[in-house]
Amino acid sequence: MDNYKTLEKVFKKLNDIEQAKAVLHWDMATNMPSGGADARVEQLATLGDIHHAILTDEGVGDLLENAGTKGRKLNDWQKANLREMKRAWNHGASVPQKLLSELTKEGAKCEMVWREARKNNDFKTLLPHLKKVVSIVREIAKLKGQAFGCSPYDALLDQYDPGRKSEQLDNVFNSLTDFLPDFIKQVVEKQKSVKVSSIKGPFDVEAQKKIASKVLDIIGFDKNHGRLDESVHPFCSGYPTDIRITTRYNENDFVSSLMGVIHEGGHAMYEEGLPKKWRGQPVGFARGMSIHESQSLLLEMQACRSREFVGFVSSLLKKEFNSKSKGWSADNLYNIYNKVEPSLIRVDADEVTYPAHVMIRYYIEKYLISGDMEVEDLPEAWNQGMKKFLGVDVKDDKDGCMQDIHWMDGTFGYFPTYTLGAIYAAQLFESANQNNKDILPAIGKGNFKPLKEWLNKNVHEKGSKASSDDIVKSATGSELDVEAYKNHLKKRYLEG
Amino acid sequence: MDNYKTLEKVFKKLNDIEQAKAVLHWDMATNMPSGGADARVEQLATLGDIHHAILTDEGVGDLLENAGTKGRKLNDWQKANLREMKRAWNHGASVPQKLLSELTKEGAKCEMVWREARKNNDFKTLLPHLKKVVSIVREIAKLKGQAFGCSPYDALLDQYDPGRKSEQLDNVFNSLTDFLPDFIKQVVEKQKSVKVSSIKGPFDVEAQKKIASKVLDIIGFDKNHGRLDESVHPFCSGYPTDIRITTRYNENDFVSSLMGVIHEGGHAMYEEGLPKKWRGQPVGFARGMSIHESQSLLLEMQACRSREFVGFVSSLLKKEFNSKSKGWSADNLYNIYNKVEPSLIRVDADEVTYPAHVMIRYYIEKYLISGDMEVEDLPEAWNQGMKKFLGVDVKDDKDGCMQDIHWMDGTFGYFPTYTLGAIYAAQLFESANQNNKDILPAIGKGNFKPLKEWLNKNVHEKGSKASSDDIVKSATGSELDVEAYKNHLKKRYLEG
Repeated sequence: MDNYKTLEKVFKKLNDIEQAKAVLHWDMATNMPSGGADARVEQLATLGDIHHAILTDEGVGDLLENAGTKGRKLNDWQKANLREMKRAWNHGASVPQKLLSELTKEGAKCEMVWREARKNNDFKTLLPHLKKVVSIVREIAKLKGQAFGCSPYDALLDQYDPGRKSEQLDNVFNSLTDFLPDFIKQVVEKQKSVKVSSIKGPFDVEAQKKIASKVLDIIGFDKNHGRLDESVHPFCSGYPTDIRITTRYNENDFVSSLMGVIHEGGHAMYEEGLPKKWRGQPVGFARGMSIHESQSLLLEMQACRSREFVGFVSSLLKKEFNSKSKGWSADNLYNIYNKVEPSLIRVDADEVTYPAHVMIRYYIEKYLISGDMEVEDLPEAWNQGMKKFLGVDVKDDKDGCMQDIHWMDGTFGYFPTYTLGAIYAAQLFESANQNNKDILPAIGKGNFKPLKEWLNKNVHEKGSKASSDDIVKSATGSELDVEAYKNHLKKRYLEG
Repeated sequence: MDNYKTLEKVFKKLNDIEQAKAVLHWDMATNMPSGGADARVEQLATLGDIHHAILTDEGVGDLLENAGTKGRKLNDWQKANLREMKRAWNHGASVPQKLLSELTKEGAKCEMVWREARKNNDFKTLLPHLKKVVSIVREIAKLKGQAFGCSPYDALLDQYDPGRKSEQLDNVFNSLTDFLPDFIKQVVEKQKSVKVSSIKGPFDVEAQKKIASKVLDIIGFDKNHGRLDESVHPFCSGYPTDIRITTRYNENDFVSSLMGVIHEGGHAMYEEGLPKKWRGQPVGFARGMSIHESQSLLLEMQACRSREFVGFVSSLLKKEFNSKSKGWSADNLYNIYNKVEPSLIRVDADEVTYPAHVMIRYYIEKYLISGDMEVEDLPEAWNQGMKKFLGVDVKDDKDGCMQDIHWMDGTFGYFPTYTLGAIYAAQLFESANQNNKDILPAIGKGNFKPLKEWLNKNVHEKGSKASSDDIVKSATGSELDVEAYKNHLKKRYLEG
């Protein structure tokens, strides 16, 4: 067998292990009895060790060096596959397993401390643990930066959005820094004159489940290759032939669960649409979290908060909740869905204030990794950011710098993908509609096929062959374009 | 680290992989969307390959040869652990991975053909596939027999009940051959005079679920370390800290689901009671399927078909089904539960006719593996056995020799454990009651604690330290004793 084919077999095996881990994680969040936690952590650690050992085996390094060079002509997809294999190998082999295990261990400990400390608004107790995690991540980032020939923070970005550079992010977030604080004020001012009738709950959970299931069918989620369950924190996991979405239901709020399901449904449809021919190979995987987030936000924010979809779904909701309230009118529902209000908590934020939450985290984590900031300074930096970007006074660390789980287990470099995804979503949805004028009218009739077809062809089926920016450029004709995003916000919130 | 400690680490890793596989299998049976099947099969195959490669690594063979010999004093548990490691290694290393993969592949194919062929009552189409499977199993049995120094069939028995010999089984089944056919006739004759009032359904499925959950609590199943779900075929899987039981509900029949849950609950309690100190090590595992089946049958057949338990559960059932039928009287329910009727299908058989179904399979599979019989002769041998042992005429292969899935994927040597389990169950339950006179009266009040304590101490906590026979001998004072089992049957069905 030639070197390239041997590598394909190795990476298929690695993917089988990754898929097994995905099922174990899903089960942990949805089904596992609490007494099974210790054993599950050990299973995942063992599979992680095995994965790392296979990936970083010397033989794989040799194969990667020689594949495609010895009289073997690779086509474009195979070349891209080899490139992605090398990237994965670089991420794996540049860091000693001992350091990774240390991060897993200290991350788990920090997360556990955080759960208690957050309840008690006790940053002091968290501090030494978070410092430890940050110091390990700094070391890992340094090693990866050396392997990739980039800055430590850029090496972390590459884990979630291959090839992403902080230089681009600086441009994006500087532009949003100039734009957003004033814009938020304008929107809030404008919405003061809009009368919103609230719709009184409780909203029957069984009805919510039925609606969630129906809406998944409507947007085109294939239940032969996926399912919807409940968990404390909604997520989408799995792999293209078996996608697991979760949500949570709240009797007093139908918006969050429905929009949550649509959001995760967008992630799921991306996975389901990845190139069939390259399943199990790195080039067939999703192209990182910015594109992933663009697909969930395109569904949630662009398509399903449109007047067209809200008009369609308002009658479905009214019927399923069996309610005669006038609040179910399309106009009123549109206003409920698109209400803007600066607030403390990122996960509850609306489309307009959300990027401000991400900006704060971006600047902080960049400086934390470079060493220009220490963990001790986190609360102050956080509170200043919230005041500056959102005009919000943070009363305590609990709902301030301790609100998110991400940093606790060492996830740095991930937050920016939320905003990049939002920008891409605006660009892609605009292009899709320009390209096919039927898309929005069809959505207004509950028909997502034209949109799905366009996304399949222009995004999903590209897998990881090109970079995020190149996928979006070939789909829309433009580079990453924060102006398109601003235009979308202006159109919807000032002109709409 | 010394050799023994290194081996403990290797076998802990192997156990993590086995546990991960158990979760993947459970998910496949309970949750997985059909489109996820191909990927799941590949994940399981990859984990199986990895497991086999780690187990049969030359280094492990060397360690096993030298552990405990080089100035290292092992205690009794460690010695037994080493013995079990060697047994696992023997099973693994004696068969080339290629042959195992072939069995997996041909077994899966045969099973698929069987599903269709059974529907169509078409033994001829099944024949070449089953012949292929049998021929691979013969080869594996031969290799394992050479490694263990025993006959090929005994080597297969050892997979499911370590150390079991067909000589013992011949004695057991010859004795039952003399006893059972006449005994069945006597019981059927006696029951003709017993009036049984049938209880009319439908039996609300939600009520059945509630009852199942309550009964699991009553018998002592720890839901902090397990859960109950639905699947097409009921089973118990998982590991001591996370046991997954499944059942199915039938609106027209409350007995099968309830008794099924109790049966699987018995399996689960055995796992939960295994020695905590030896979790993840071979000596801490369940001692094979005969003891496992003894625990499920002790609960289902001995404890929960007793007059004491039936008296207790009759009022629970009447209340939960909210029914006023006179059929819910303890006496009538006892008669329903213990009704004997020779029939075609093993899985629907009652306590008395069940061993006859197993006998037929034992003789056939023994001769199939030794080569004294060919697959072509299966239907005739089956039909003769059914006539001889049960007095039943088999009309077609569909409900005859094609009814069970076991042989299709190469599971030979497993069937006898059903009857050995039934014998052990009779011995153990009798001893438990002799040892503690409170056990049955407590069961009559829905209190299973005294029984559970006795089983924990005398069976569960022994893990795999001793052989099945030695566990039962030290618990009851007797060897495997088919007479105790016959006495139980006579007492319940002729004298009771």
